[in-house]
Order: sequence, then structure tokens, then C-alpha cells
Amino acid sequence: MRVLLDGMGGDNAPYAVCEGAVLAAQETEHEIVIIGDEDKLNEALKKACGRDDIPSNISVCHASEVISNNEAPALAIRRKKDSSIVKGMNMLKAGEGDLFVSAGSTGALLAGGLLLIGRIKGIDRPAICTIYPILGNKASLLCDAGANAECKPRNLLDFAIMSSIYMEKVLGRENPTVKLVNIGEEEEKGSSLTKETFELLKNSGLNFKGNIEARDVPKGRADVIVTDGFTGNIILKLTEGMAWNIFKTIKKKFTDGLHARLGSLLLLDKLKELKKEFDYSSYGGAPILGIKRPVVKMHGSSSSNGVKNTILKALIFAEQDVIGVIEDSIQEK
Amino acid sequence: MRVLLDGMGGDNAPYAVCEGAVLAAQETEHEIVIIGDEDKLNEALKKACGRDDIPSNISVCHASEVISNNEAPALAIRRKKDSSIVKGMNMLKAGEGDLFVSAGSTGALLAGGLLLIGRIKGIDRPAICTIYPILGNKASLLCDAGANAECKPRNLLDFAIMSSIYMEKVLGRENPTVKLVNIGEEEEKGSSLTKETFELLKNSGLNFKGNIEARDVPKGRADVIVTDGFTGNIILKLTEGMAWNIFKTIKKKFTDGLHARLGSLLLLDKLKELKKEFDYSSYGGAPILGIKRPVVKMHGSSSSNGVKNTILKALIFAEQDVIGVIEDSIQEK
Repeated sequence: MRVLLDGMGGDNAPYAVCEGAVLAAQETEHEIVIIGDEDKLNEALKKACGRDDIPSNISVCHASEVISNNEAPALAIRRKKDSSIVKGMNMLKAGEGDLFVSAGSTGALLAGGLLLIGRIKGIDRPAICTIYPILGNKASLLCDAGANAECKPRNLLDFAIMSSIYMEKVLGRENPTVKLVNIGEEEEKGSSLTKETFELLKNSGLNFKGNIEARDVPKGRADVIVTDGFTGNIILKLTEGMAWNIFKTIKKKFTDGLHARLGSLLLLDKLKELKKEFDYSSYGGAPILGIKRPVVKMHGSSSSNGVKNTILKALIFAEQDVIGVIEDSIQEK
Repeated sequence: MRVLLDGMGGDNAPYAVCEGAVLAAQETEHEIVIIGDEDKLNEALKKACGRDDIPSNISVCHASEVISNNEAPALAIRRKKDSSIVKGMNMLKAGEGDLFVSAGSTGALLAGGLLLIGRIKGIDRPAICTIYPILGNKASLLCDAGANAECKPRNLLDFAIMSSIYMEKVLGRENPTVKLVNIGEEEEKGSSLTKETFELLKNSGLNFKGNIEARDVPKGRADVIVTDGFTGNIILKLTEGMAWNIFKTIKKKFTDGLHARLGSLLLLDKLKELKKEFDYSSYGGAPILGIKRPVVKMHGSSSSNGVKNTILKALIFAEQDVIGVIEDSIQEK
């Protein structure tokens, strides 16, 4: 396998990306091609390796442009032909690599997936699937996490099928349970979208377990959580915002006064554990499902460890031929 | 003023409701009529007063039926004519009281508001407005928090107008800022609903400050947060679920081992403070805005203190003639 890695995407690029590639190269024999500004990448790689040689399964492929988060995605994909994202996706399409991993603009990755790689036949809307961290429990897969602000029931059925396959093949969850986000548990609750989707899911042959209210999402009551991209984005961002806010408040309160500081010192390990439970980088990045080749989006602020984990999980995504299984399942429908 | 109080609604009824009424009666001279099973209410009132007399501004009005949370709301409103909710709303409509407060079924209160009290002329969809707790900052008002699973842009404009008036008149926020929940801050982001609503809000004369992403909702960046009832419900329930989950995890970790228990002891005050910041009962309940008379929904698990606060804030809601101001504003549109 040949991993195509966007060296220029994300807040900590290119250093964290290069360091992550080096860490991954120590754990896998597959080839890793880092795409981006040659000079910057080589410099970052040298820094990441220190006195050691750059691993022989890492190479650099030059791309002179970068697509930023602020650019209009489709326009950027059309105009910046020599950007790391466009180059990586074109290489992926041409078979010069088996998977593409990037911490760059989600919009550009989605637009590139549609425009350069193309949809799987029978899938109307590709979606982005994100691991949702659960405290003290196995994580869920949330799909769609923000690719499609407006969806039809049929799209949500596709999301459920694709996510179930990914969850089983990549994260090893057998016969994964699927729940539909709704504003009540009862079948008749919600919008016309949720009501019609409920019907489709009930008859889908998936391991569908009914509706899930938002209050139960953080409790890990389902392997796959299906929703439209608007709601999925709200769930993901609100969770981040809440966690950020609570940790900030804890930090402020727990360092206020001698008693509190002493108490915090005694609880240091526990506080670290708590913070770690929110860290979902061990699950790898967010696959874009519904396009013809494996593309995985990493969190913009991925650390080198996050980059490493994403590469290793993305390799399973490609090796398990998740896309082939999705193609077969969609045709059987 | 005459407060009509549903004695039978909520998890802790009738005791917490009666005790809350007694606490409120000590702080206001307005009359409080508790509606529900006479015997049970009198017993609860006696228990709440202990050796003291029942305050002279509290009276009981008998209602033989109770609407539970599990009943189909509109059907229950039509059938249970002698329930505390139907009786209270009919009294409110007949002018036998100035406001109605209940911890009962939200669905039944909404259905009762529509069927028994009626909409304000020009308002297509009444909404429920909930105080959204902000850690270490002033709370926001979230509207719609779940009454309308599907909305039109015009409905969201109405929600923004009504919430701004409530926020100014009842919670004393001058010229309250309004933000629209969206999956990006830019004007062109989101669904057709958010895009069209953005246009309406921009030209509304309200203190509209653009879109707010879900990650910023817990940071208190707006006085009024406007969204459809589906998204509002997701935000509210997810926030509850996250808080519950984090506190549960903290409790488990902080009592695991001698060091941790000692640390927790030193941090006891801070932990209590943290929990208190999530308690929004001091802000009163959730008004149903868009109907012709003041109806306020309390949280189902309201404590006596929550009941007291809701009664006192609901009195301001009625005294300030929020509904009259809404009627005038809607006609000016």
C-alpha cells in the first residue's frame, strides 16, 4: 500500500504531519508519500528524525500550492491544480497511491472527493463520518458530521449503510447498532425527515435500534449515529465547545486558592485521565464515505500522534476494501 | 396579580410545587392559586409549612385529573377537561388568573396554549424559550427549544422578536444581541432555512450579530440564540447529557483511591460551585411565547427553589406586559 499524505494541511503542518509520518513509518512497512512544499517538508522531516535517518519508506512529492480553510472549496479545487490536496487526489485517482490522508480544509476535501474522485454509483451524497468520543465507553461513529446541510431520507439510509460497514471493517465492531438522532425516542416523533428515515432504516436489514435523543449521544448507546449534516455538525461542535468550557472552568476553579491547588495536585492523575478520555485521536480520522477511493480527514489540530493513528487506521480502511463492500451493498439494495 | 400554579406537574409534585409556592408567597404579596387534587395539595401545603400557618395569599383549586408526560398532548387536552393543565389554562383565558405556571408535560402545555388560549395575531408558530446556562457568564435565551420540529424563516424571525422582548423586559438585558445557530459563521453557510433567516434577521431592526456555531453556544456569545425547534432541542438535550456525563465521570474518578478522595475533599467547595453554575433554576422557567396569555413551563425535576424562582420571574413576565409588547411589535412589522 502507498499512503498519500497531505503535508501542508492543519494547524501544525508541516511539522506535526512529518513527525506523525515518521512515527507511522516505524510501525508499518507501507510506503508514505508526503505531498507539499519540498523544502519545508524535508526540513520538517530532518527535524522530526533528529540524529536518525529518515525512514526509507517515506518520500516527498512536491506541490507548490496550499488550499487554506478560508477559500471557497470548489473554486480552490478548480484553480489550485498544484496544491497538496488536488495533487494528492489526482494521484489517488490515477492509482499512484491507495489512500489519501489530510488535515486540510474539510470543504476542499469534500469538493475534491466529488469533483476529482467521484461518487460511488448509487450514492447521491457522500458524507463525512466522525468518531464521537464517549467518556468511559466505546466511541460512536457520527455520520453525517457536516458534509450535507440538507438531506433526504434516502441519503440518511446510505449514511447508515456506509457507516455500519466502516465500523465493522475498520473499528472491528461486529453487527454495529445504528440509531437515528431525533427529538424523542418514539417512532412518530420529529420532522418529516426523521419519520421517513425511520421507516427506511426499519426495513434496511441493518441493526437499527430506533431513535436516540441528543442527551443519550454522549452516553455511547449506539455504534453508529445517523443524522443530517446540519444536526451532525451541531452535535460535534457543541460537544467540543462544552468540553472546552468545562475544562476551562475546572482549571480556573481548581487553581484558585491554596486548598484548591493542593487538592488539584492530589488529583493530577485523575484530571489527566479525564482529559485523555476526550482525546479521540487513537481512533484515527474521519473518512469521507461515498466516493470511489479512500480519503480520510484528520482534525485540523492533530498532533503527530494523531497523524500516526490516522495513517494506521486509514491503511485498514484501504486494506479491508471498505469501498468495494459499500459498492456491493448499494447495488444489492 | 393572580398566579395559577399547576400542583400536579413534574417529578416532585405535589410537594416541591407546594413548598415552592410557600417560599414564593413569603417574597410576594400576589395571590397564588394551586390547581390539582385538593386533598393531596392541602396535605403537601401543611407539610411544607410545618408549624406555621399556610400563607394567606395561597389557595387551592380542585382538579380531579392529571395529564402525564406519556399521553398524546392534543388528545389529552381535549379529553381531560378536569386536569390541572386544562383547568389552569381555561381559568387563565377566562381572566381568573394572570399567568399559568406548570412543570407538567411540555407537549400538553403547547397543545393547551394553541387549543385553549390561542395564538397572538400574526404569529404562525408559538415557541418555547429556554434559559441556556453558561459557565461563568450570563445565560442566553434559546428559542425555539423544541416546540416546532420544522420551521420557516418567518417563524425564526418571530422567535427572535419575541425572545428579544422577553430578554429585555423580564431578564433586564438591554438591547439584547441575537445570533442564529448555523454550521459556519459566514452568511452564505448552512441550509436554505438559515440562509433565508439570516436575510430576514439582518433587516429586522433587532440587534442581530450574525451566525453562531454550536461550539460557541456554551461560551455565552449572545443574549438570544435563535434556531428551529429540532436543532434547539438537540442543543438543550446534548448540553444536559454532556454535563451529566462529565459530572458522573468526575465523581467516579475523584473517589477512586485515597489520594483522589483527599484531593476531592480539599476541592469540595469548588466542585459544589461548578455544579451550581449548571443550575439555571434562578432564571425561572421557560416561557411559551406566541400565545395570548403568559404560560411558563418549569423543568420537570424542579426543586421547591426552582418553583419559587419560576413564580417570581413569571410575575415579571405578566407585570411587564411582554405579550402586549409582542402584539404591538408584530403588528408594526
